[in-house]
Amino acid sequence: MGELPHVVIVGAGFGGIMAARGLKNAPVRVTVIDRTNHHLFQPLLYQVATAGLSPANIAAPIRDVLHKQRNAEVFLAEAAGVDTAGKLVHLREGASIPYDYLIIATGSRYNYFGHNGWEEDAPSLKSLSDGVSMRQEILLAFEAAEMEPDPARRKALLTFVLVGGGPTGVELAGSIAELAHRALKEDFRHFDPRSARIILIEAGPRILAAFPKELSNAAQKALERLGVEVRTDAMVQEVDDRGVSASGVRIDSRNVIWTAGVVATPVGKWLDVETDNIGRIPVNADLSVPGHPNILVLGDAARLEQDGKLLPGVCPVAMQQGRYAAALIRARAGEKGKEPGPFRYHDKGNVATVGRGFAIVDLGRLKLSGFVAWVAWIFIHIWYLIGFRNRISVMFQWAWAYITWQRAARLITGPIPGPRLFAKTVDSLADDRTSITTKTRKLP
Amino acid sequence: MGELPHVVIVGAGFGGIMAARGLKNAPVRVTVIDRTNHHLFQPLLYQVATAGLSPANIAAPIRDVLHKQRNAEVFLAEAAGVDTAGKLVHLREGASIPYDYLIIATGSRYNYFGHNGWEEDAPSLKSLSDGVSMRQEILLAFEAAEMEPDPARRKALLTFVLVGGGPTGVELAGSIAELAHRALKEDFRHFDPRSARIILIEAGPRILAAFPKELSNAAQKALERLGVEVRTDAMVQEVDDRGVSASGVRIDSRNVIWTAGVVATPVGKWLDVETDNIGRIPVNADLSVPGHPNILVLGDAARLEQDGKLLPGVCPVAMQQGRYAAALIRARAGEKGKEPGPFRYHDKGNVATVGRGFAIVDLGRLKLSGFVAWVAWIFIHIWYLIGFRNRISVMFQWAWAYITWQRAARLITGPIPGPRLFAKTVDSLADDRTSITTKTRKLP
Repeated sequence: MGELPHVVIVGAGFGGIMAARGLKNAPVRVTVIDRTNHHLFQPLLYQVATAGLSPANIAAPIRDVLHKQRNAEVFLAEAAGVDTAGKLVHLREGASIPYDYLIIATGSRYNYFGHNGWEEDAPSLKSLSDGVSMRQEILLAFEAAEMEPDPARRKALLTFVLVGGGPTGVELAGSIAELAHRALKEDFRHFDPRSARIILIEAGPRILAAFPKELSNAAQKALERLGVEVRTDAMVQEVDDRGVSASGVRIDSRNVIWTAGVVATPVGKWLDVETDNIGRIPVNADLSVPGHPNILVLGDAARLEQDGKLLPGVCPVAMQQGRYAAALIRARAGEKGKEPGPFRYHDKGNVATVGRGFAIVDLGRLKLSGFVAWVAWIFIHIWYLIGFRNRISVMFQWAWAYITWQRAARLITGPIPGPRLFAKTVDSLADDRTSITTKTRKLP
Repeated sequence: MGELPHVVIVGAGFGGIMAARGLKNAPVRVTVIDRTNHHLFQPLLYQVATAGLSPANIAAPIRDVLHKQRNAEVFLAEAAGVDTAGKLVHLREGASIPYDYLIIATGSRYNYFGHNGWEEDAPSLKSLSDGVSMRQEILLAFEAAEMEPDPARRKALLTFVLVGGGPTGVELAGSIAELAHRALKEDFRHFDPRSARIILIEAGPRILAAFPKELSNAAQKALERLGVEVRTDAMVQEVDDRGVSASGVRIDSRNVIWTAGVVATPVGKWLDVETDNIGRIPVNADLSVPGHPNILVLGDAARLEQDGKLLPGVCPVAMQQGRYAAALIRARAGEKGKEPGPFRYHDKGNVATVGRGFAIVDLGRLKLSGFVAWVAWIFIHIWYLIGFRNRISVMFQWAWAYITWQRAARLITGPIPGPRLFAKTVDSLADDRTSITTKTRKLP
């Protein structure tokens, strides 16, 4: 009896976690490596960024997800490279972990299309820590506006620009509009939060381009009813700490958020293989890397065609690939049952939400928009949330927010007071020391 | 008709928030200044630090608490000084706010008794941001232990030392013991979390010295049943990044937490008045500062004797003083009804919790310890939580945690991976590159 084969999984997103769970009771040892301690339910991350849900509602500790799976261990560490000849994963922390099978499920990050300097002024939303700091920035913008005597600066603080009309941009736009126009409407004394502008910029001719045209039109109308300005065919030319320029129009804004396009993490370099222009590794039909049959790549890091079309970078693809990878390894590791055929993605449909009570659902033959679609969206999302506690807790917070229009998690927990936006108003207050006094006197 | 008098309240803790709410519909304008955006329910902060509750469960945005009170405004800002002659509060941000009445409710911070350098290696727990970073440090200690091959270093990572046997030290000790010995017990593969040591160090002869002796003894026994080592009559001599020395005994620990004694924030300097040795301002029987009848000081920042005894620095004192200050100002601002007499604190009793299902309650004649006291403690705490949503949500999370022994909020959301504890193990892993390999092979 030799030792059990060792499967190393890098990344505990949808693909990685499904692969790990799929190897439960398999004749292998499993090591999951992630640089965070939690599996994140990314489709609801925008709710954390807009104070609707708490971080704990949409994240489950990886250890907790796998704690009953005795053949699996978890390391909080960052993979830094792979030695394919020696079959080792190098960690940034200095150690190396040997593998017999390697599953790379490292996902993607946002693509600034060569303008990486824009990231500082237009952050994006991938990790829980991004969500918490975006929440802080959004809330601080309103706080700073309350103390800002200069109308132009106040207007810039109350202008939110979303770059990219995909699901994340649309969801954030709708959610910020609801926050400003409804949840916060009685909370300030020196301005009306309903005056906040929310602008969604899309380079293409319509938002939510992955959906049929009638559904994207319905979504755009719903966004506009919430008070969002939608600008299509608008190319961003410049981003700085005072705003954004798109197709020749300048918008002064202290809150530019980037949601346009993704690029895979640098796994191509690790394996020394060619990638496509957004960093994805072309894989064989069994998800293996050409020339490396024992290395599988899943999810946003993989490039795979099916019926002449590229598979999209969405959760269901990653989840189905994770399950497939586990089945493949079980068979190759000698478990009875035959090896699965080539991977095939089963597209069950596409959903996106626009705000309270409105979503669009595309199930192929069935296309829905409005409240019914939104209820469907809620149930689909809660169903997939890992962990029973989270399902109940999210449901409760949503129900409560729905009834009261409150935001449960409106907390600024970072350095006190939050650095970026607040600092920007300091000079204006110093310019005009009596301004607050004057304004205070205007209270009813 | 002149303008309404302006009441400025610095600090939105228990005293400040009660004063602000007490001035609802009074013939005054109210400005609340706080350097965070939330009122914090501090008695449950230890639950955030030990991953039992989420930050949003124990904090309410100050704006939300006061959003219906049209005579009140809120500034997220930090007070930096007071000009008593010009009747102005200076903000660190540069502006100044004029007042007719000033209420100082700035609370306290932990007292390192002259060893301020110890704070870096032995953090304390006052703000929500302290709670989140303490949670992160505690969770990272376990994560680092999983990858630490050296037994002595692993032991230091799994040793938690609480300095100070007051309520916070006792609550944290009990809660960390439950986390390690119960909630995490199946989550690691390279060590048994039940081997974690939790040590509570108290300089005096017994813990919870504010309680009668029989109750502190009961609490100590309950702690010991949870696996906490209690060391009384132990003076801390040295704290460094490798551990702590107390009464000649060295304890190697990467997790030293300071909960010993408090000192008032530097309000004495602002007003240029003498304070006592822990920074509190002696106040008159109407809470005013001698020589400054329009400045009131509340809560931990105030020093006041009643019946020959100093009032303790506890929430109920601050809350009652806040309500008193509001009543006094209402009368002085010309509202009908006579001015209240000197402030009197009504002591309703004292509670402290030791862990799941055990608390002590001292109501004077009635002394309780055990499960019934714990149920009483839960209801008292939830009753005082500001905001209906929080009451339900905390109750739900507690009920769930009680049934499942899970921790709802085991998230590391800071810089990835968390810097302090993790960095400390990097060198050891680098020393012995194959150690993880070896250990991994030992998996069942």
